[in-house]
Amino acid sequence: MTEFNRFFAPRSLAFLGASSDTDKWGYRILSNIVHGGFQGKLYPVNPKGGEALGLRFYKSLEEVPEVPDLVIIVVPPIAMVDTIKGCISKGIKAGVVVTAGFAEVSENGAAVQAEMVALARKGGMRLIGPNCFGILSPSARLYAQMPPIFPPDGRIAVVSQSGNVGLTIARRAMALDFGCSRMISIGNEADLHAEDFLEYLAGDDKTSVILAYIEGFKDGRRFFQVARDTSLKKPIVMIKVGETEAGAAAARSHTAALSGSSEVFGGISRQAGIIRANNLQELMNLGYGFLCHPIPKGRRVGIATLGGGWGVLAADACARLGLDVVKLPRDVIKELDSFLPAWWSRNNPVDLVAGSADDILRVVDILAKSDATDSVLTLGVPFPHMARMALPVKEEEKKQVFQSVVEAYTKSFEQMKAISDKYGKPVIVAAELPAPRAERSVDQDIMRSIARQNMVCYGMPDEAAKVLNSMAMYGEFLKRG
Amino acid sequence: MTEFNRFFAPRSLAFLGASSDTDKWGYRILSNIVHGGFQGKLYPVNPKGGEALGLRFYKSLEEVPEVPDLVIIVVPPIAMVDTIKGCISKGIKAGVVVTAGFAEVSENGAAVQAEMVALARKGGMRLIGPNCFGILSPSARLYAQMPPIFPPDGRIAVVSQSGNVGLTIARRAMALDFGCSRMISIGNEADLHAEDFLEYLAGDDKTSVILAYIEGFKDGRRFFQVARDTSLKKPIVMIKVGETEAGAAAARSHTAALSGSSEVFGGISRQAGIIRANNLQELMNLGYGFLCHPIPKGRRVGIATLGGGWGVLAADACARLGLDVVKLPRDVIKELDSFLPAWWSRNNPVDLVAGSADDILRVVDILAKSDATDSVLTLGVPFPHMARMALPVKEEEKKQVFQSVVEAYTKSFEQMKAISDKYGKPVIVAAELPAPRAERSVDQDIMRSIARQNMVCYGMPDEAAKVLNSMAMYGEFLKRG
Repeated sequence: MTEFNRFFAPRSLAFLGASSDTDKWGYRILSNIVHGGFQGKLYPVNPKGGEALGLRFYKSLEEVPEVPDLVIIVVPPIAMVDTIKGCISKGIKAGVVVTAGFAEVSENGAAVQAEMVALARKGGMRLIGPNCFGILSPSARLYAQMPPIFPPDGRIAVVSQSGNVGLTIARRAMALDFGCSRMISIGNEADLHAEDFLEYLAGDDKTSVILAYIEGFKDGRRFFQVARDTSLKKPIVMIKVGETEAGAAAARSHTAALSGSSEVFGGISRQAGIIRANNLQELMNLGYGFLCHPIPKGRRVGIATLGGGWGVLAADACARLGLDVVKLPRDVIKELDSFLPAWWSRNNPVDLVAGSADDILRVVDILAKSDATDSVLTLGVPFPHMARMALPVKEEEKKQVFQSVVEAYTKSFEQMKAISDKYGKPVIVAAELPAPRAERSVDQDIMRSIARQNMVCYGMPDEAAKVLNSMAMYGEFLKRG
Repeated sequence: MTEFNRFFAPRSLAFLGASSDTDKWGYRILSNIVHGGFQGKLYPVNPKGGEALGLRFYKSLEEVPEVPDLVIIVVPPIAMVDTIKGCISKGIKAGVVVTAGFAEVSENGAAVQAEMVALARKGGMRLIGPNCFGILSPSARLYAQMPPIFPPDGRIAVVSQSGNVGLTIARRAMALDFGCSRMISIGNEADLHAEDFLEYLAGDDKTSVILAYIEGFKDGRRFFQVARDTSLKKPIVMIKVGETEAGAAAARSHTAALSGSSEVFGGISRQAGIIRANNLQELMNLGYGFLCHPIPKGRRVGIATLGGGWGVLAADACARLGLDVVKLPRDVIKELDSFLPAWWSRNNPVDLVAGSADDILRVVDILAKSDATDSVLTLGVPFPHMARMALPVKEEEKKQVFQSVVEAYTKSFEQMKAISDKYGKPVIVAAELPAPRAERSVDQDIMRSIARQNMVCYGMPDEAAKVLNSMAMYGEFLKRG
């Protein structure tokens, strides 16, 4: 069994620091492992014995009847060195140290952390953490983390220096049913660093895109070398924080990370093919984008819009990022002239002025077909019952009306996807969801339904433009090689 | 009756171009007026007669038995000049021209538009539009607009050159029950310009904040003079598009607007006290922000966070915008030392590491009390049932569990509001909502419940930082006077 399989597909797991006190992490994380449905052998350990969640605690690691593939460690800092020694004499090769109170709090903590790592390295044991929220690996039904979240199996991997940012990402991916392949809270990176996980994920067949939240680097040179190699195989989307003095100071006390300057990072990350996100919404959008759309061959965008204002917002956003809102060639204008109303703008964006579902599909097809575009941005999705959704719907009709709206959206996105597939170009949609006053869950049903078609609906034109631009940048990186 | 009261609180309304064809705007807008519950006299007019929505159409404006305060006009462009003539001979003083096909499509259209305006001005009639989606004035139960939306009465006014952007704004304000005071789609601004509405709204006691979407200016000099005077009375938050060549071209064919350069606009708008939003989410956040928080007296921010990563994101976002993430003074550190765990960071942000609801309230109170801060940013809201919300909740328990979560959030926000009131400083909260997998409506219930306390929860640290910075800028403008 390879090193990383021990972490992400363990056959057996010891949990050191188990507790029956429901306020303690020793209970909560154990509860997540149990409720997450871990299928392997599970051995909770506490020197005082005890039981919880239907499991009797072992009094020591020696009592555990096999050598577990993985240990999750939540014992207090004072007991950490002895715990690591015990793991090594048991023959354990992989451990996740959740406990905090090391290099991020004091010099003394840093010394203990250094001792742990020295012991582990000598004993052939690899460590994640300390000061981390744990790891998730849904395909192995492993949910060994602090917050009670259970994202389904998916193709997004998350590498995060922050537990709560990781949690935010997981929640968002769950809300749309995209799920995740692995989620690793890397904490203080005492032994294993962010780049070790990039290296693993590059070859991980469960993962298609990597989202990373990074405050600073332990070994910047190696990070960027590994990131470059990884980027050639799959995209890495990253939020890098700690760019300002205030942010860097916060990062130091959070994960003892040294942040480095923004300019240097910008240049190096471009060379390494890393896609940068400016905030968490962008990070999520880019994750979905790389899952759902092909990489565009260039920067030329055709835009179709159901409303003028959204078209202007999109044109501005695209141009500001350096995308080319192409002048429509003669043949495209001629083809559009054949069915659009006489007064249509003959410009890109093509403004359909609240046209029909058929019209917008025709426009998108013509724009995608043209040699003059590398991608198409569609703004707005026509759907039935729009008027009815705005008025109170009778209780007995709700289910049927809402269901037909979800189906209409799903069909529109299937059709957009089909055009994208036909021409091998991204067809990216930004649209408002119906959001009728009383039933926001309809929006979520739509997003989940289209996610099952491997499509996503971006909220606003500038969000879609950012995705398109980042995908074009990634395409340029792959071309440079 | 003043000019603008005719538009926003009409006692009677003629609707020119009424239709019984449910696909036509002549039906749809009439339907919105009827379903919106307009209380005044309503006179639909169509030369061919007919009926719809329980109303018989008058065959001409002459037949209407009084001089209506307002006309809504949806007749085709070809009939427009005669229609305006008819309005003037009837003695009508205010009209909203929804019909499109004028200056935005052709020189001929521009000529007709010019003739309309010349006639109206000579006849003492003021016009909104043409090429607009209509107007809303919920306090008068007037919903005379194309899309079927019925935002409740609120304190946000919207002035939009785009109908569909106006619609997006209305939907978002509705989703949180903030509602709006007036919403005006200004279209081609043939007669009344954006600045005329700013001037009106400056003195409108239903309006506390003005949100504007602007593609270009008909009379830039007057716009900024009026905007400056208005800003001294209430904040104007604006998205200005058409900054790039592609965006400007799209704006020309959308509302015949000339956009002007970005740099010039940036400088002038700062002098006029206009708050700029970069996208619609920011526009909404700023609208809520000005409604919910007092104006900070300066740029010094204290940050309290339930998680390290969010703290770093916030510190970065604040510092990048030019807010001062203050060094904590000795007395604040001492007071925090008395109850925070020994290893707390002693930095701003104050990282509570998943502390209790009581702890975070104490921290926020101490930060708000200190002379060293002008505002407090709080990241995260502790709430009960977090673990239960993550696991499937039994059907019969759902209502009770969800209700208690909504109540817990509402209480947290009430407490934050109380601290804000006590010290007269903004206490701004960015937090994730529980978003349990199956019930997104809980999030919406929370947002609506806290909106009733005149509070709002921002989604991400960078959003909250943007609000705080914009409010600080507005405070600086007011000080300059």
